[in-house]
Amino acid sequence: MQIVKLVSRLLASHYRDQPQLAQSQAYAPSNIALSKYWGKRDTKLNLPITGSLSISLAKHGTQTQLKPIDDANHRIYLNHKLVEPTTPFAHKVVTWLKWVLPAGLVLEVKTYNSVPTAAGLASSASGFAALVQATNRLMGWELPDKKLSILARLGSGSACRSLWHGFVEWYVGECDDGNDSFAEPLPYVWSQLRLGLLQISTENKTVSSRQGMLHTVQTSTLYKKWPDQTTTDLRQIRSAIVAQDFEALGATAERNAMTMHATMMAAWPPLVYWKPESVATMHQVWDLRRQGIPVYLTMDAGPNIKLLFLKQDQVVLQDIFNQLQVVAPFQP
Amino acid sequence: MQIVKLVSRLLASHYRDQPQLAQSQAYAPSNIALSKYWGKRDTKLNLPITGSLSISLAKHGTQTQLKPIDDANHRIYLNHKLVEPTTPFAHKVVTWLKWVLPAGLVLEVKTYNSVPTAAGLASSASGFAALVQATNRLMGWELPDKKLSILARLGSGSACRSLWHGFVEWYVGECDDGNDSFAEPLPYVWSQLRLGLLQISTENKTVSSRQGMLHTVQTSTLYKKWPDQTTTDLRQIRSAIVAQDFEALGATAERNAMTMHATMMAAWPPLVYWKPESVATMHQVWDLRRQGIPVYLTMDAGPNIKLLFLKQDQVVLQDIFNQLQVVAPFQP
Repeated sequence: MQIVKLVSRLLASHYRDQPQLAQSQAYAPSNIALSKYWGKRDTKLNLPITGSLSISLAKHGTQTQLKPIDDANHRIYLNHKLVEPTTPFAHKVVTWLKWVLPAGLVLEVKTYNSVPTAAGLASSASGFAALVQATNRLMGWELPDKKLSILARLGSGSACRSLWHGFVEWYVGECDDGNDSFAEPLPYVWSQLRLGLLQISTENKTVSSRQGMLHTVQTSTLYKKWPDQTTTDLRQIRSAIVAQDFEALGATAERNAMTMHATMMAAWPPLVYWKPESVATMHQVWDLRRQGIPVYLTMDAGPNIKLLFLKQDQVVLQDIFNQLQVVAPFQP
Repeated sequence: MQIVKLVSRLLASHYRDQPQLAQSQAYAPSNIALSKYWGKRDTKLNLPITGSLSISLAKHGTQTQLKPIDDANHRIYLNHKLVEPTTPFAHKVVTWLKWVLPAGLVLEVKTYNSVPTAAGLASSASGFAALVQATNRLMGWELPDKKLSILARLGSGSACRSLWHGFVEWYVGECDDGNDSFAEPLPYVWSQLRLGLLQISTENKTVSSRQGMLHTVQTSTLYKKWPDQTTTDLRQIRSAIVAQDFEALGATAERNAMTMHATMMAAWPPLVYWKPESVATMHQVWDLRRQGIPVYLTMDAGPNIKLLFLKQDQVVLQDIFNQLQVVAPFQP
């Protein structure tokens, strides 16, 4: 189905041909998947092969301001800098705006990321989630959450999980049009849970997640075992959250991330996002676990490492990892 | 079946109750699998789940001297040092000697490795292959190659491939007793082929190949796709050897190694033999390939990297990798 048609059905009675506000803004947190989104069954609609489950990163995310302007083209600023319209980033944003806005409405989009762009911290997730919410406000759509999540997904798959704080599950769905593939927050609070961000590199990735997952699905024999594995992992992670069983949560999330990276390495040519420092940090984490400290790792399509641990171990871990940025996902 | 019984059937009419020589010696090269041996269907008999294909490392290998001594226990020397009987190394050698020697015959075993022990350069392969051949001479068995290969396999799986120089294929076999699981040399010479050894680390591995493959088979979901993948790879490598198609050989061998490591990373707990320097070297190899230099990598259950290239690129690569030890497998 054409996206424009699909979007017009989604908006339907919510559609407005004029902005309802002079300007709007919204914030969305970045998120880290505990069981990953890796592989699409529809590359245009960003429909996943499996469900996924994430935790949002509280204050690490994207703030976006929208303002109608009298100009021929949308003007996009990222962290105070005008973005060239030819960049992939501008192209993705403009494409999405064209799907949802009435013809002739031109916007100034000011986006501020508190996570490094394209370094494995899912800035496109928070970026599209903030854009969707700011657009919803500007246009006065008052869309239900499910529809906002679908609109965010069309911009960037994992963005559909970035509309909320806390744990969020993205349902795989079955429909060809993707109207049952959206995310919802899970009603569980885990106040002792901590995430630790270790920035291995802020370089731009040479292979985007989008390209990486396509390449893996197409060329990696091992990928064939991924859908079953991650579906099992998601179920186990959900149970671990309900039971507040940290070791089960950490172990399953780590296995899920390692398995995702394993599917890439078996692609041809091999896809290895890891840098030497990533491997050094992994071994350090495993040494700590052997010493009895319950700390687990997860990684996305990039070289950075994210730690999972409990509040009780925060001081010890901050001492070991000087650069650790600690996130308390349930402490506003 | 009990190994002792199996060995006595293998020796049968070749059996001698006394050494036929006062001493003996033999040399066997180490080998690097181009399509790997990874996973056993019988852990006692070292019967593999799939076939494998290797290239021998010419002068990198093991020299072993045997001499009957008047003592209660076998005395084993490794690189001029007496090895404590309690070490895993001595234990493996003594176990093998007990299977094959007449009761009461005690040996001094002097072994010299020109490859670092237990650092991913398969010293147990050349070690057992040399031991088997030296024993065959000392005892005057005059066993056919097939039986020598089986005896070597009982000591260490990949040792069955180290009895020859050049390309060697180990047939997976079907029999429960393993009498059809042995190796044979392939009758192809490829004089331009070069291997490059890059020693990342000579530290003892914390997880042996033996343990690593068991752990992977038992806990890694992705391992389930390995047998099919490596069987396809082996066939493609054999064809590439026959056709002297270097790019096909290199690409398939590299994919095979990366896929093997991928199966380990998806095990639980994850098994990562890579060190930071391994990853740095991988990226370097891939950069070189993007620059047009046909160089491929392979890795065994360890952190070291082995390069595959042709004679024409040797000088350039030696310039880039200062520590590169070049092996010309077909230049005696």
